[in-house]
Amino acid sequence: MNGADEKRIDGKTIARRIEEEAAETVRRLRESGTEPRLVSVAVDEEDASFASYLRSREQACLRVGIRSDVVVVPAADPTRSLGGALEKLSADRTVHAILLKLPLPPGADEAAIFARIDPAKDVEGLHPLNAGLLASGRPRFVPCTALAVAEILAVESPSLAGKDVVILGRSRVVGSPLAVLLLRKGTDATVTVCHSRTRDLAGHARRADVLVAAVGRPEMVTGEWIRPGAIVIDVGTHAIEDPSAKKGWRLAGDVRFESAEPACSRITPVPGGVGPVTTAVLLRAAASAAASAAGGDR
Amino acid sequence: MNGADEKRIDGKTIARRIEEEAAETVRRLRESGTEPRLVSVAVDEEDASFASYLRSREQACLRVGIRSDVVVVPAADPTRSLGGALEKLSADRTVHAILLKLPLPPGADEAAIFARIDPAKDVEGLHPLNAGLLASGRPRFVPCTALAVAEILAVESPSLAGKDVVILGRSRVVGSPLAVLLLRKGTDATVTVCHSRTRDLAGHARRADVLVAAVGRPEMVTGEWIRPGAIVIDVGTHAIEDPSAKKGWRLAGDVRFESAEPACSRITPVPGGVGPVTTAVLLRAAASAAASAAGGDR
Repeated sequence: MNGADEKRIDGKTIARRIEEEAAETVRRLRESGTEPRLVSVAVDEEDASFASYLRSREQACLRVGIRSDVVVVPAADPTRSLGGALEKLSADRTVHAILLKLPLPPGADEAAIFARIDPAKDVEGLHPLNAGLLASGRPRFVPCTALAVAEILAVESPSLAGKDVVILGRSRVVGSPLAVLLLRKGTDATVTVCHSRTRDLAGHARRADVLVAAVGRPEMVTGEWIRPGAIVIDVGTHAIEDPSAKKGWRLAGDVRFESAEPACSRITPVPGGVGPVTTAVLLRAAASAAASAAGGDR
Repeated sequence: MNGADEKRIDGKTIARRIEEEAAETVRRLRESGTEPRLVSVAVDEEDASFASYLRSREQACLRVGIRSDVVVVPAADPTRSLGGALEKLSADRTVHAILLKLPLPPGADEAAIFARIDPAKDVEGLHPLNAGLLASGRPRFVPCTALAVAEILAVESPSLAGKDVVILGRSRVVGSPLAVLLLRKGTDATVTVCHSRTRDLAGHARRADVLVAAVGRPEMVTGEWIRPGAIVIDVGTHAIEDPSAKKGWRLAGDVRFESAEPACSRITPVPGGVGPVTTAVLLRAAASAAASAAGGDR
């Protein structure tokens, strides 16, 4: 009865609804003469996955009618080159949303760079003011992956009140902002944040009504970590070698899907789970940034 | 052997060391011609405890040589009256630190009020930018009670790595910022934040190596909630009726001390635990705000 397909959370369907919201906002903006525009900023990388990253962003923007451009800066002295590009885009009134590709290269001064993004265009919520608005209970832009997980949970588990959510990973773009989102009044989850220094990761995971895996290690979480009936959200995306696959590799998450699926009640697959929702949330944020700017212009 | 006195964490001793740091900063500033000045802003209250609150702040400032003033605004239309006072003090170059008395009266627009404090004088970390700097791993001003708990733990449990910290209470001035402080790299606690909607508060508490009670309810936490050997930090301060006391009342925390003391390894008393450290941390923040302003003037 409860086969793998029934347990699989369909990220694409959730993403579609959010992208429709974004597309509707974009439609209204274009009618009133504003062309919403997102610019991605990245340090030059000679890497096939980089080109594919840029292409997929481009395609996503096209789907909802957002103009998308890319600024690639030289890898030498990234603090200066990224900072300069961000400052220029922040001042450019035709640009509504700025996306900075993470992680930054080694040696880049993260704080100095994030502070150069106009908070009103900071769709990934990297500027300290946006992090503070989230912490203060008035989120404006929130890191998209964290928000995507919250969107999925709003569908899958409309009441989290009193539920135990265990987040594996404390990163600034996933684990930490997600904890804030889920602890808010009205959402009311009880939240534990674990990380590489946690004594008994599996023990904490086994307490979870909702387990969020954002550890950044392929297939680290297995079925023995899952409390029977738990909802499992897998944030990882890794290309791992797989001789049985045609290309010699396949995509994998932080969770070993086949092992976790029998124990859980619902689980996000990789690909097709958190990923598409993250993209949709980004598009909606970009559309909303453009709408705010257009509103302010009147 | 392990009597109540041996288990009692002496907040006053920890506070004294921090106040000495503050006094040293103040001494240097006064020598170079700066008089550090803290201004407290409060809405008028016809309440004996209000006068005593103001007096104790005044005395604390005197101890380390900080000039202390109070601005009391009328209770009608607090958003306007507080906002106006905060804006004036933010612009006043003789004022280095601004302390807003919380909680705000009902109907006050918290967000609008906090945004009027110059972030560089915001010693309680209320402005969203300061909340964001904390969330971004570069804390400048942090809510003093949360920082006081972290200071006590740094003395009592120098390595929190891998330890389970359970925080009862998710408030913006205690529970939430404390979670961020203890999760940071280098501190590395595993942190659970519980609150009024948590399913099994006592069960979570019993897992804790370090239990922080910030629930705001007198003596709610009892010995059965304490894991044997745990460190207990009691953030509450309540005046409760006590016919056996000379005045008819006594101070109590969120923890029933006599009940919790046998189970724990160490515990903060009320009064004399978190309270004096919170005051000391505030004085140090005010001295440091004055030092930054004086540095910027050169």
